[in-house]
Amino acid sequence: MHIAFIGLGAMGLPMARRLVEAGHDVRGHDVTAAARERFSEAGGTLSGSIEKACDGADALFLMVVNADQTEGVLFDEGAARALPEGALVIACCTQPPARAEDCGRRLAASGLRLLDAPVSGGTAGAEGGTLTIMAGGPRETFEAARPILEILGDKLHHVGEAWGQGSTMKTVNQLMCGAHIAVAAEALALGRAAGIDGGLMLEILGKSAAASWMLNDRGPRMLQHDPEVRSAVDIFVKDLGIVLDAGREGKTPTPIASLAYQLFLAASARDLGRADDSQLVRVFEELSGRAEQ
Amino acid sequence: MHIAFIGLGAMGLPMARRLVEAGHDVRGHDVTAAARERFSEAGGTLSGSIEKACDGADALFLMVVNADQTEGVLFDEGAARALPEGALVIACCTQPPARAEDCGRRLAASGLRLLDAPVSGGTAGAEGGTLTIMAGGPRETFEAARPILEILGDKLHHVGEAWGQGSTMKTVNQLMCGAHIAVAAEALALGRAAGIDGGLMLEILGKSAAASWMLNDRGPRMLQHDPEVRSAVDIFVKDLGIVLDAGREGKTPTPIASLAYQLFLAASARDLGRADDSQLVRVFEELSGRAEQ
Repeated sequence: MHIAFIGLGAMGLPMARRLVEAGHDVRGHDVTAAARERFSEAGGTLSGSIEKACDGADALFLMVVNADQTEGVLFDEGAARALPEGALVIACCTQPPARAEDCGRRLAASGLRLLDAPVSGGTAGAEGGTLTIMAGGPRETFEAARPILEILGDKLHHVGEAWGQGSTMKTVNQLMCGAHIAVAAEALALGRAAGIDGGLMLEILGKSAAASWMLNDRGPRMLQHDPEVRSAVDIFVKDLGIVLDAGREGKTPTPIASLAYQLFLAASARDLGRADDSQLVRVFEELSGRAEQ
Repeated sequence: MHIAFIGLGAMGLPMARRLVEAGHDVRGHDVTAAARERFSEAGGTLSGSIEKACDGADALFLMVVNADQTEGVLFDEGAARALPEGALVIACCTQPPARAEDCGRRLAASGLRLLDAPVSGGTAGAEGGTLTIMAGGPRETFEAARPILEILGDKLHHVGEAWGQGSTMKTVNQLMCGAHIAVAAEALALGRAAGIDGGLMLEILGKSAAASWMLNDRGPRMLQHDPEVRSAVDIFVKDLGIVLDAGREGKTPTPIASLAYQLFLAASARDLGRADDSQLVRVFEELSGRAEQ
Protein backbone atom coordinates (compact mmCIF):
# COMPACT_ATOMS: atom_id res chain seq x y z
CA MET A 1 0.00 0.00 0.00
CA HIS A 2 1.20 3.53 -0.74
CA ILE A 3 1.10 5.41 2.54
CA ALA A 4 1.92 9.10 2.97
CA PHE A 5 3.27 9.97 6.42
CA ILE A 6 3.51 13.57 7.61
CA GLY A 7 5.16 14.32 10.95
CA LEU A 8 8.25 12.20 11.64
CA GLY A 9 9.03 13.23 15.21
CA ALA A 10 9.47 11.16 18.37
CA MET A 11 6.15 9.37 17.81
CA GLY A 12 5.86 9.57 14.02
CA LEU A 13 9.26 8.19 13.10
CA PRO A 14 8.91 4.80 14.85
CA MET A 15 5.35 4.47 13.55
CA ALA A 16 6.51 5.18 9.97
CA ARG A 17 9.38 2.75 10.43
CA ARG A 18 6.98 -0.04 11.42
CA LEU A 19 4.91 0.60 8.29
CA VAL A 20 8.09 0.42 6.15
CA GLU A 21 9.15 -2.81 7.87
CA ALA A 22 5.70 -4.29 7.19
CA GLY A 23 6.40 -3.85 3.49
CA HIS A 24 4.45 -0.70 2.71
CA ASP A 25 5.62 2.02 0.35
CA VAL A 26 5.87 4.85 2.86
CA ARG A 27 6.51 8.34 1.51
CA GLY A 28 7.19 10.89 4.18
CA HIS A 29 7.73 14.53 4.89
CA ASP A 30 8.62 16.58 7.94
CA VAL A 31 9.56 20.22 8.39
CA THR A 32 12.87 19.39 10.10
CA ALA A 33 15.83 18.05 8.14
CA ALA A 34 17.04 15.74 10.93
CA ALA A 35 13.65 13.96 11.04
CA ARG A 36 13.68 13.54 7.25
CA GLU A 37 17.16 12.04 7.42
CA ARG A 38 16.25 9.51 10.12
CA PHE A 39 13.17 8.52 8.12
CA SER A 40 15.30 7.98 5.04
CA GLU A 41 17.75 5.85 7.04
CA ALA A 42 14.78 3.77 8.21
CA GLY A 43 13.96 2.89 4.60
CA GLY A 44 11.26 5.47 3.94
CA THR A 45 11.02 7.48 0.74
CA LEU A 46 11.50 11.23 1.04
CA SER A 47 9.07 12.96 -1.28
CA GLY A 48 10.33 16.51 -0.98
CA SER A 49 6.89 17.95 -0.32
CA ILE A 50 3.57 17.14 1.29
CA GLU A 51 1.83 17.18 -2.06
CA LYS A 52 4.25 14.73 -3.64
CA ALA A 53 4.01 12.37 -0.64
CA CYS A 54 0.21 12.35 -0.94
CA ASP A 55 -0.01 12.10 -4.72
CA GLY A 56 -1.76 8.80 -5.43
CA ALA A 57 -1.55 7.58 -1.80
CA ASP A 58 -4.06 5.06 -0.46
CA ALA A 59 -3.75 6.50 3.03
CA LEU A 60 -2.29 9.53 4.76
CA PHE A 61 -1.07 9.45 8.35
CA LEU A 62 -0.99 12.81 10.10
CA MET A 63 1.23 12.61 13.17
CA VAL A 64 1.58 16.37 13.65
CA VAL A 65 1.19 18.24 16.92
CA ASN A 66 -2.27 19.75 16.90
CA ALA A 67 -5.45 20.67 15.03
CA ASP A 68 -3.90 23.75 13.40
CA GLN A 69 -1.07 21.73 11.90
CA THR A 70 -3.48 18.97 10.83
CA GLU A 71 -5.66 21.46 8.96
CA GLY A 72 -2.59 23.26 7.62
CA VAL A 73 -1.22 20.09 6.03
CA LEU A 74 -4.59 19.07 4.63
CA PHE A 75 -6.02 22.33 3.36
CA ASP A 76 -3.18 24.85 3.06
CA GLU A 77 -0.27 22.68 2.01
CA GLY A 78 -2.14 20.63 -0.55
CA ALA A 79 -2.57 17.16 0.99
CA ALA A 80 -6.34 17.06 0.51
CA ARG A 81 -5.95 18.20 -3.09
CA ALA A 82 -3.24 15.63 -3.88
CA LEU A 83 -4.93 12.58 -2.38
CA PRO A 84 -7.06 10.48 -4.75
CA GLU A 85 -10.77 10.09 -4.11
CA GLY A 86 -11.59 7.56 -1.40
CA ALA A 87 -8.19 7.83 0.29
CA LEU A 88 -8.03 7.35 4.06
CA VAL A 89 -6.87 10.25 6.22
CA ILE A 90 -5.78 9.06 9.66
CA ALA A 91 -5.41 12.01 12.02
CA CYS A 92 -3.54 10.93 15.14
CA CYS A 93 -2.99 14.16 17.03
CA THR A 94 -4.76 15.13 20.23
CA GLN A 95 -7.21 17.84 19.24
CA PRO A 96 -10.46 19.38 20.43
CA PRO A 97 -13.35 17.07 19.46
CA ALA A 98 -15.15 19.85 17.58
CA ARG A 99 -12.12 20.44 15.34
CA ALA A 100 -11.95 16.74 14.40
CA GLU A 101 -15.65 16.77 13.54
CA ASP A 102 -15.25 19.84 11.35
CA CYS A 103 -12.23 18.32 9.61
CA GLY A 104 -14.15 15.10 8.86
CA ARG A 105 -16.94 17.04 7.17
CA ARG A 106 -14.56 19.10 5.01
CA LEU A 107 -12.68 15.99 3.87
CA ALA A 108 -15.90 14.10 3.13
CA ALA A 109 -16.93 16.97 0.85
CA SER A 110 -13.76 16.22 -1.15
CA GLY A 111 -14.45 12.49 -1.26
CA LEU A 112 -11.86 11.68 1.42
CA ARG A 113 -12.42 9.50 4.48
CA LEU A 114 -11.23 10.80 7.84
CA LEU A 115 -10.54 8.59 10.80
CA ASP A 116 -10.25 10.68 13.97
CA ALA A 117 -7.71 8.35 15.54
CA PRO A 118 -5.66 9.68 18.44
CA VAL A 119 -3.11 7.32 19.93
CA SER A 120 -1.73 6.67 23.41
CA GLY A 121 1.30 4.75 24.57
CA GLY A 122 4.21 7.11 23.96
CA THR A 123 7.37 6.40 22.06
CA ALA A 124 7.70 2.97 23.66
CA GLY A 125 4.27 2.04 22.28
CA ALA A 126 5.12 3.55 18.91
CA GLU A 127 8.34 1.56 18.69
CA GLY A 128 6.81 -1.72 19.85
CA GLY A 129 3.54 -1.53 17.94
CA THR A 130 1.60 -1.52 21.20
CA LEU A 131 -0.21 1.79 20.89
CA THR A 132 -3.78 2.27 22.00
CA ILE A 133 -5.75 3.75 19.10
CA MET A 134 -9.10 5.43 19.84
CA ALA A 135 -10.95 5.92 16.59
CA GLY A 136 -14.04 7.95 15.78
CA GLY A 137 -15.66 7.91 12.35
CA PRO A 138 -17.81 5.63 10.19
CA ARG A 139 -17.18 1.97 10.99
CA GLU A 140 -16.37 1.18 7.34
CA THR A 141 -13.58 3.76 7.47
CA PHE A 142 -12.29 2.15 10.65
CA GLU A 143 -12.38 -1.31 9.06
CA ALA A 144 -10.64 -0.04 5.93
CA ALA A 145 -7.85 1.37 8.09
CA ARG A 146 -7.63 -1.64 10.41
CA PRO A 147 -4.89 -3.56 8.51
CA ILE A 148 -2.45 -0.66 8.79
CA LEU A 149 -3.57 0.33 12.31
CA GLU A 150 -2.78 -3.21 13.47
CA ILE A 151 0.87 -2.65 12.56
CA LEU A 152 1.00 0.26 15.00
CA GLY A 153 -1.24 -0.70 17.89
CA ASP A 154 -2.51 -3.80 19.64
CA LYS A 155 -5.45 -2.09 21.32
CA LEU A 156 -7.69 -0.75 18.56
CA HIS A 157 -11.02 0.74 19.59
CA HIS A 158 -13.85 2.07 17.47
CA VAL A 159 -15.26 4.57 19.95
CA GLY A 160 -18.16 5.77 17.80
CA GLU A 161 -19.49 6.68 14.36
CA ALA A 162 -18.87 10.40 14.69
CA TRP A 163 -15.61 12.20 13.99
CA GLY A 164 -14.67 13.81 17.30
CA GLN A 165 -15.53 10.81 19.45
CA GLY A 166 -11.98 9.50 19.12
CA SER A 167 -10.71 12.89 20.24
CA THR A 168 -13.13 12.98 23.16
CA MET A 169 -11.84 9.62 24.33
CA LYS A 170 -8.26 10.83 23.96
CA THR A 171 -9.10 13.94 25.98
CA VAL A 172 -10.27 11.78 28.88
CA ASN A 173 -7.12 9.67 28.47
CA GLN A 174 -4.87 12.74 28.56
CA LEU A 175 -6.58 14.06 31.65
CA MET A 176 -5.47 10.91 33.44
CA CYS A 177 -1.98 10.83 31.90
CA GLY A 178 -1.16 14.44 32.74
CA ALA A 179 -2.62 14.23 36.23
CA HIS A 180 -0.75 10.98 36.91
CA ILE A 181 2.59 12.58 35.99
CA ALA A 182 1.81 15.39 38.42
CA VAL A 183 0.76 12.96 41.16
CA ALA A 184 3.96 10.94 40.73
CA ALA A 185 6.09 14.09 40.82
CA GLU A 186 4.38 15.32 44.00
CA ALA A 187 4.73 11.92 45.72
CA LEU A 188 8.40 11.45 44.83
CA ALA A 189 9.20 15.00 45.90
CA LEU A 190 7.49 14.43 49.27
CA GLY A 191 9.31 11.16 49.87
CA ARG A 192 12.72 12.47 48.85
CA ALA A 193 12.25 15.51 51.09
CA ALA A 194 11.74 13.01 53.95
CA GLY A 195 14.96 11.24 53.04
CA ILE A 196 13.57 8.13 51.34
CA ASP A 197 15.60 6.77 48.45
CA GLY A 198 13.99 7.50 45.09
CA GLY A 199 14.78 4.10 43.59
CA LEU A 200 13.31 2.26 46.58
CA MET A 201 10.16 4.36 46.30
CA LEU A 202 9.76 3.49 42.63
CA GLU A 203 10.21 -0.19 43.43
CA ILE A 204 7.57 -0.10 46.16
CA LEU A 205 5.06 2.26 44.56
CA GLY A 206 5.36 0.70 41.13
CA LYS A 207 3.99 -2.61 42.37
CA SER A 208 1.52 -1.42 45.00
CA ALA A 209 -1.97 0.06 44.81
CA ALA A 210 -0.21 3.37 44.10
CA ALA A 211 1.03 2.17 40.73
CA SER A 212 0.30 3.91 37.48
CA TRP A 213 1.61 3.40 33.98
CA MET A 214 3.02 6.94 34.17
CA LEU A 215 4.83 6.32 37.47
CA ASN A 216 6.59 3.31 35.99
CA ASP A 217 7.42 5.09 32.74
CA ARG A 218 8.27 8.61 33.94
CA GLY A 219 9.42 7.78 37.49
CA PRO A 220 12.97 6.71 36.59
CA ARG A 221 13.45 9.88 34.54
CA MET A 222 12.09 11.98 37.42
CA LEU A 223 15.13 10.82 39.39
CA GLN A 224 17.49 12.08 36.65
CA HIS A 225 18.41 15.72 36.38
CA ASP A 226 18.41 16.14 32.63
CA PRO A 227 17.02 12.99 31.04
CA GLU A 228 16.45 12.19 27.40
CA VAL A 229 13.35 13.97 26.09
CA ARG A 230 10.76 11.30 25.31
CA SER A 231 7.76 13.64 25.48
CA ALA A 232 7.99 17.33 26.26
CA VAL A 233 6.36 19.36 29.04
CA ASP A 234 4.66 21.57 26.44
CA ILE A 235 2.78 18.57 25.01
CA PHE A 236 0.86 18.42 28.28
CA VAL A 237 0.43 22.19 28.44
CA LYS A 238 -1.38 21.68 25.12
CA ASP A 239 -3.24 18.47 26.00
CA LEU A 240 -4.41 19.56 29.44
CA GLY A 241 -5.50 22.83 27.81
CA ILE A 242 -7.69 20.72 25.50
CA VAL A 243 -9.06 18.87 28.54
CA LEU A 244 -10.00 22.17 30.19
CA ASP A 245 -11.63 23.37 26.94
CA ALA A 246 -13.61 20.13 26.69
CA GLY A 247 -14.73 20.52 30.30
CA ARG A 248 -15.78 24.11 29.68
CA GLU A 249 -17.70 23.25 26.51
CA GLY A 250 -19.45 20.35 28.23
CA LYS A 251 -19.99 22.27 31.49
CA THR A 252 -18.11 19.58 33.40
CA PRO A 253 -15.72 20.91 36.06
CA THR A 254 -12.28 19.26 36.02
CA PRO A 255 -10.56 20.57 39.18
CA ILE A 256 -7.64 18.12 39.15
CA ALA A 257 -6.87 18.62 35.47
CA SER A 258 -7.01 22.34 36.15
CA LEU A 259 -4.41 22.10 38.89
CA ALA A 260 -2.22 19.76 36.84
CA TYR A 261 -2.40 22.23 33.96
CA GLN A 262 -1.17 25.04 36.21
CA LEU A 263 1.76 22.91 37.35
CA PHE A 264 2.78 22.03 33.77
CA LEU A 265 2.40 25.70 32.88
CA ALA A 266 4.71 26.57 35.79
CA ALA A 267 7.27 24.13 34.39
CA SER A 268 6.97 25.70 30.96
CA ALA A 269 7.32 29.17 32.51
CA ARG A 270 10.59 27.99 34.08
CA ASP A 271 11.97 27.32 30.60
CA LEU A 272 11.30 23.58 30.86
CA GLY A 273 8.75 23.54 28.03
CA ARG A 274 10.98 21.43 25.79
CA ALA A 275 12.36 19.32 28.63
CA ASP A 276 11.10 15.79 29.23
CA ASP A 277 7.73 15.96 30.99
CA SER A 278 9.21 13.97 33.90
CA GLN A 279 10.92 17.24 34.83
CA LEU A 280 7.62 18.49 36.21
CA VAL A 281 9.16 17.13 39.41
CA ARG A 282 11.41 20.21 39.45
CA VAL A 283 8.37 22.44 40.01
CA PHE A 284 7.63 20.50 43.21
CA GLU A 285 11.26 20.68 44.27
CA GLU A 286 11.24 24.44 43.76
CA LEU A 287 7.96 24.76 45.67
CA SER A 288 9.62 23.22 48.70
CA GLY A 289 12.88 25.14 48.27
CA ARG A 290 14.81 22.02 47.32
CA ALA A 291 15.70 22.75 43.69
CA GLU A 292 19.14 21.40 42.88
CA GLN A 293 20.21 24.10 40.47
CA MET B 1 3.21 -19.68 66.47
CA HIS B 2 0.74 -18.01 68.82
CA ILE B 3 -0.39 -14.82 67.10
CA ALA B 4 -2.74 -12.25 68.60
CA PHE B 5 -4.75 -10.34 66.00
CA ILE B 6 -6.63 -7.17 66.90
CA GLY B 7 -8.88 -5.53 64.28
CA LEU B 8 -10.82 -8.02 62.16
CA GLY B 9 -12.42 -5.67 59.64
CA ALA B 10 -12.34 -5.70 55.83
CA MET B 11 -8.54 -5.89 55.79
CA GLY B 12 -7.88 -7.64 59.09
CA LEU B 13 -10.22 -10.60 58.66
CA PRO B 14 -8.70 -11.97 55.44
CA MET B 15 -5.21 -11.42 56.85
CA ALA B 16 -6.09 -13.29 60.05
CA ARG B 17 -7.70 -16.05 57.98
CA ARG B 18 -4.49 -16.55 55.99
CA LEU B 19 -2.50 -16.88 59.23
CA VAL B 20 -4.99 -19.49 60.48
CA GLU B 21 -4.78 -21.38 57.19
CA ALA B 22 -1.00 -21.38 57.42
CA GLY B 23 -1.33 -23.34 60.66
CA HIS B 24 -0.82 -20.62 63.26
CA ASP B 25 -2.72 -20.40 66.51
CA VAL B 26 -4.47 -17.09 65.91
CA ARG B 27 -6.35 -15.52 68.80
CA GLY B 28 -8.38 -12.51 67.85
CA HIS B 29 -10.49 -9.69 69.10
CA ASP B 30 -12.56 -6.94 67.53
CA VAL B 31 -14.99 -4.42 68.97
CA THR B 32 -17.83 -5.52 66.67
CA ALA B 33 -19.66 -8.80 67.20
CA ALA B 34 -20.12 -9.51 63.47
CA ALA B 35 -16.36 -9.31 62.88
CA ARG B 36 -15.71 -11.66 65.80
CA GLU B 37 -18.23 -14.14 64.40
CA ARG B 38 -16.67 -14.15 60.92
CA PHE B 39 -13.24 -14.66 62.48
CA SER B 40 -14.52 -17.61 64.48
CA GLU B 41 -16.08 -19.12 61.34
CA ALA B 42 -12.68 -18.75 59.65
CA GLY B 43 -11.12 -20.98 62.31
CA GLY B 44 -9.72 -18.32 64.60
CA THR B 45 -9.93 -18.48 68.40
CA LEU B 46 -11.97 -15.76 70.07
CA SER B 47 -10.24 -14.70 73.23
CA GLY B 48 -12.91 -12.47 74.72
CA SER B 49 -10.52 -9.61 75.40
CA ILE B 50 -7.40 -7.96 74.05
CA GLU B 51 -5.42 -8.98 77.12
CA LYS B 52 -6.36 -12.63 76.80
CA ALA B 53 -5.52 -12.67 73.09
CA CYS B 54 -2.08 -11.24 73.84
CA ASP B 55 -1.28 -13.35 76.87
CA GLY B 56 1.78 -15.41 75.93
CA ALA B 57 1.64 -14.45 72.23
CA ASP B 58 4.78 -14.52 70.10
CA ALA B 59 3.46 -11.72 67.92
CA LEU B 60 0.63 -9.19 67.90
CA PHE B 61 -0.89 -7.86 64.70
CA LEU B 62 -2.61 -4.50 65.03
CA MET B 63 -4.92 -3.94 62.06
CA VAL B 64 -6.88 -1.09 63.62
CA VAL B 65 -7.75 2.20 61.95
CA ASN B 66 -5.27 4.76 63.22
CA ALA B 67 -2.57 5.78 65.70
CA ASP B 68 -5.06 6.50 68.49
CA GLN B 69 -6.55 3.01 68.28
CA THR B 70 -3.08 1.46 68.04
CA GLU B 71 -1.95 3.20 71.20
CA GLY B 72 -5.28 2.51 72.89
CA VAL B 73 -4.97 -1.24 72.32
CA LEU B 74 -1.34 -1.31 73.41
CA PHE B 75 -1.27 0.99 76.39
CA ASP B 76 -4.85 1.49 77.61
CA GLU B 77 -6.40 -1.88 76.95
CA GLY B 78 -3.53 -3.98 78.23
CA ALA B 79 -1.88 -5.51 75.16
CA ALA B 80 1.61 -4.26 76.01
CA ARG B 81 1.25 -5.51 79.57
CA ALA B 82 -0.01 -8.96 78.50
CA LEU B 83 2.62 -9.67 75.84
CA PRO B 84 5.72 -11.59 76.97
CA GLU B 85 9.14 -9.95 76.72
CA GLY B 86 10.59 -9.98 73.23
CA ALA B 87 7.22 -10.35 71.52
CA LEU B 88 6.80 -8.74 68.10
CA VAL B 89 4.25 -5.97 67.68
CA ILE B 90 3.33 -5.45 64.03
CA ALA B 91 1.45 -2.18 63.59
CA CYS B 92 -0.17 -2.09 60.15
CA CYS B 93 -2.28 1.05 60.23
CA THR B 94 -1.51 4.22 58.32
CA GLN B 95 -0.35 6.71 60.92
CA PRO B 96 1.76 9.85 61.19
CA PRO B 97 5.46 8.87 61.15
CA ALA B 98 6.14 10.65 64.44
CA ARG B 99 3.47 8.61 66.21
CA ALA B 100 5.00 5.33 65.00
CA GLU B 101 8.42 6.45 66.24
CA ASP B 102 7.04 7.34 69.64
CA CYS B 103 5.19 4.03 69.88
CA GLY B 104 8.36 2.09 69.05
CA ARG B 105 10.27 3.79 71.86
CA ARG B 106 7.53 3.13 74.43
CA LEU B 107 7.33 -0.56 73.49
CA ALA B 108 11.12 -0.97 73.52
CA ALA B 109 11.12 0.34 77.09
CA SER B 110 8.84 -2.63 77.95
CA GLY B 111 11.07 -5.11 76.14
CA LEU B 112 8.73 -5.37 73.13
CA ARG B 113 9.77 -5.09 69.47
CA LEU B 114 7.71 -2.84 67.21
CA LEU B 115 7.65 -3.18 63.47
CA ASP B 116 6.09 -0.06 61.90
CA ALA B 117 4.60 -1.99 59.00
CA PRO B 118 1.82 -0.33 57.02
CA VAL B 119 0.35 -2.36 54.17
CA SER B 120 -1.06 -1.55 50.74
CA GLY B 121 -3.11 -3.61 48.34
CA GLY B 122 -6.63 -3.44 49.71
CA THR B 123 -8.93 -6.32 50.51
CA ALA B 124 -7.97 -8.11 47.29
CA GLY B 125 -4.34 -8.08 48.40
CA ALA B 126 -5.30 -9.13 51.92
CA GLU B 127 -7.31 -12.08 50.60
CA GLY B 128 -4.70 -13.20 48.09
CA GLY B 129 -1.62 -12.71 50.23
CA THR B 130 -0.29 -10.15 47.77
CA LEU B 131 -0.03 -7.11 50.04
CA THR B 132 2.82 -4.65 49.83
CA ILE B 133 4.34 -4.29 53.31
CA MET B 134 6.52 -1.24 54.04
CA ALA B 135 8.39 -1.85 57.26
CA GLY B 136 10.39 0.51 59.43
CA GLY B 137 12.32 -0.68 62.49
CA PRO B 138 15.50 -2.60 63.35
CA ARG B 139 16.38 -5.11 60.64
CA GLU B 140 16.46 -7.97 63.15
CA THR B 141 12.85 -7.20 64.06
CA PHE B 142 11.97 -7.22 60.36
CA GLU B 143 13.73 -10.57 59.87
CA ALA B 144 12.02 -12.06 62.92
CA ALA B 145 8.64 -11.03 61.49
CA ARG B 146 9.42 -12.10 57.92
CA PRO B 147 8.02 -15.66 58.11
CA ILE B 148 4.57 -14.43 59.11
CA LEU B 149 4.70 -11.34 56.85
CA GLU B 150 5.35 -13.65 53.89
CA ILE B 151 1.97 -15.27 54.47
CA LEU B 152 0.30 -11.89 53.97
CA GLY B 153 2.34 -10.11 51.34
CA ASP B 154 4.56 -10.90 48.39
CA LYS B 155 6.26 -7.49 48.29
CA LEU B 156 8.05 -7.05 51.62
CA HIS B 157 10.27 -4.01 52.00
CA HIS B 158 12.52 -2.97 54.85
CA VAL B 159 12.41 0.79 54.31
CA GLY B 160 14.77 1.73 57.13
CA GLU B 161 16.02 1.11 60.66
CA ALA B 162 13.85 3.76 62.28
CA TRP B 163 10.25 3.33 63.38
CA GLY B 164 8.30 5.88 61.36
CA GLN B 165 10.07 5.20 58.08
CA GLY B 166 7.50 2.57 57.18
CA SER B 167 4.76 5.10 57.90
CA THR B 168 6.51 7.76 55.82
CA MET B 169 6.62 5.38 52.88
CA LYS B 170 2.96 4.56 53.37
CA THR B 171 2.13 8.26 53.46
CA VAL B 172 3.71 8.72 50.02
CA ASN B 173 1.85 5.62 48.84
CA GLN B 174 -1.50 6.95 50.11
CA LEU B 175 -0.94 10.30 48.45
CA MET B 176 -0.82 8.46 45.13
CA CYS B 177 -3.69 6.10 45.92
CA GLY B 178 -6.08 8.84 47.01
CA ALA B 179 -5.14 11.16 44.19
CA HIS B 180 -5.51 8.34 41.64
CA ILE B 181 -9.06 7.61 42.81
CA ALA B 182 -9.90 11.29 42.41
CA VAL B 183 -8.27 11.41 38.94
CA ALA B 184 -10.21 8.34 37.80
CA ALA B 185 -13.47 9.78 39.12
CA GLU B 186 -12.89 13.10 37.35
CA ALA B 187 -11.98 11.38 34.07
CA LEU B 188 -14.94 8.99 34.08
CA ALA B 189 -17.32 11.82 34.97
CA LEU B 190 -15.99 13.92 32.06
CA GLY B 191 -16.30 11.07 29.58
CA ARG B 192 -19.77 10.04 30.69
CA ALA B 193 -20.93 13.65 30.50
CA ALA B 194 -19.78 13.56 26.85
CA GLY B 195 -21.80 10.41 26.24
CA ILE B 196 -19.00 7.84 26.20
CA ASP B 197 -19.86 4.44 27.62
CA GLY B 198 -18.30 3.85 31.02
CA GLY B 199 -17.36 0.24 30.36
CA LEU B 200 -15.65 1.11 27.07
CA MET B 201 -13.69 3.85 28.84
CA LEU B 202 -12.48 1.43 31.50
CA GLU B 203 -11.42 -1.03 28.80
CA ILE B 204 -9.44 1.62 26.91
CA LEU B 205 -8.01 3.57 29.85
CA GLY B 206 -7.16 0.46 31.84
CA LYS B 207 -4.67 -0.70 29.22
CA SER B 208 -3.31 2.63 27.99
CA ALA B 209 -0.80 5.09 29.39
CA ALA B 210 -3.71 6.38 31.51
CA ALA B 211 -3.84 3.17 33.53
CA SER B 212 -3.52 3.03 37.27
CA TRP B 213 -4.02 0.24 39.75
CA MET B 214 -6.81 2.34 41.28
CA LEU B 215 -8.59 2.85 37.96
CA ASN B 216 -8.69 -0.88 37.36
CA ASP B 217 -9.76 -1.66 40.93
CA ARG B 218 -12.20 1.19 41.68
CA GLY B 219 -13.33 1.98 38.12
CA PRO B 220 -15.92 -0.81 37.84
CA ARG B 221 -17.44 0.21 41.17
CA MET B 222 -17.50 3.88 40.06
CA LEU B 223 -19.99 2.77 37.39
CA GLN B 224 -22.27 1.24 40.05
CA HIS B 225 -24.62 3.36 42.10
CA ASP B 226 -24.30 1.66 45.45
CA PRO B 227 -21.49 -0.89 45.29
CA GLU B 228 -20.18 -3.16 47.99
CA VAL B 229 -17.98 -1.24 50.43
CA ARG B 230 -14.42 -2.50 50.00
CA SER B 231 -12.75 0.58 51.51
CA ALA B 232 -14.66 3.61 52.79
CA VAL B 233 -14.42 7.25 51.75
CA ASP B 234 -13.50 8.22 55.32
CA ILE B 235 -10.35 6.08 55.17
CA PHE B 236 -9.00 8.53 52.62
CA VAL B 237 -10.24 11.54 54.54
CA LYS B 238 -7.98 10.18 57.28
CA ASP B 239 -5.05 9.10 55.09
CA LEU B 240 -4.92 12.23 52.94
CA GLY B 241 -5.11 14.21 56.18
CA ILE B 242 -1.97 12.37 57.29
CA VAL B 243 -0.35 13.22 53.94
CA LEU B 244 -1.12 16.92 54.45
CA ASP B 245 0.25 16.76 58.00
CA ALA B 246 3.43 15.10 56.75
CA GLY B 247 3.80 17.79 54.09
CA ARG B 248 3.30 20.54 56.65
CA GLU B 249 5.78 19.03 59.10
CA GLY B 250 8.37 18.58 56.35
CA LYS B 251 7.60 21.94 54.71
CA THR B 252 6.81 20.19 51.43
CA PRO B 253 3.75 21.55 49.60
CA THR B 254 1.38 18.85 48.31
CA PRO B 255 -1.12 20.75 46.13
CA ILE B 256 -2.68 17.71 44.46
CA ALA B 257 -3.12 15.78 47.72
CA SER B 258 -4.66 18.94 49.16
CA LEU B 259 -7.26 19.10 46.38
CA ALA B 260 -7.94 15.36 46.56
CA TYR B 261 -8.45 15.72 50.31
CA GLN B 262 -11.05 18.44 49.76
CA LEU B 263 -12.91 16.23 47.28
CA PHE B 264 -12.99 13.26 49.68
CA LEU B 265 -14.10 15.65 52.43
CA ALA B 266 -16.92 16.83 50.15
CA ALA B 267 -17.98 13.20 49.68
CA SER B 268 -17.94 12.66 53.43
CA ALA B 269 -19.93 15.86 53.93
CA ARG B 270 -22.58 14.44 51.55
CA ASP B 271 -23.04 11.52 53.94
CA LEU B 272 -20.88 9.21 51.82
CA GLY B 273 -18.22 8.76 54.51
CA ARG B 274 -19.02 5.09 54.96
CA ALA B 275 -19.73 4.44 51.28
CA ASP B 276 -17.17 2.73 49.07
CA ASP B 277 -14.45 5.22 48.13
CA SER B 278 -15.31 4.69 44.45
CA GLN B 279 -18.36 6.84 45.18
CA LEU B 280 -16.12 9.91 45.12
CA VAL B 281 -17.33 9.95 41.52
CA ARG B 282 -20.67 11.26 42.82
CA VAL B 283 -18.98 14.48 43.95
CA PHE B 284 -17.90 15.08 40.35
CA GLU B 285 -21.37 14.22 39.06
CA GLU B 286 -22.88 16.71 41.49
CA LEU B 287 -20.33 19.35 40.50
CA SER B 288 -21.55 19.13 36.92
CA GLY B 289 -25.23 18.90 37.87
CA ARG B 290 -25.50 15.28 36.77
CA ALA B 291 -26.12 13.51 40.06
CA GLU B 292 -28.50 10.60 39.55
CA GLN B 293 -30.29 10.84 42.87
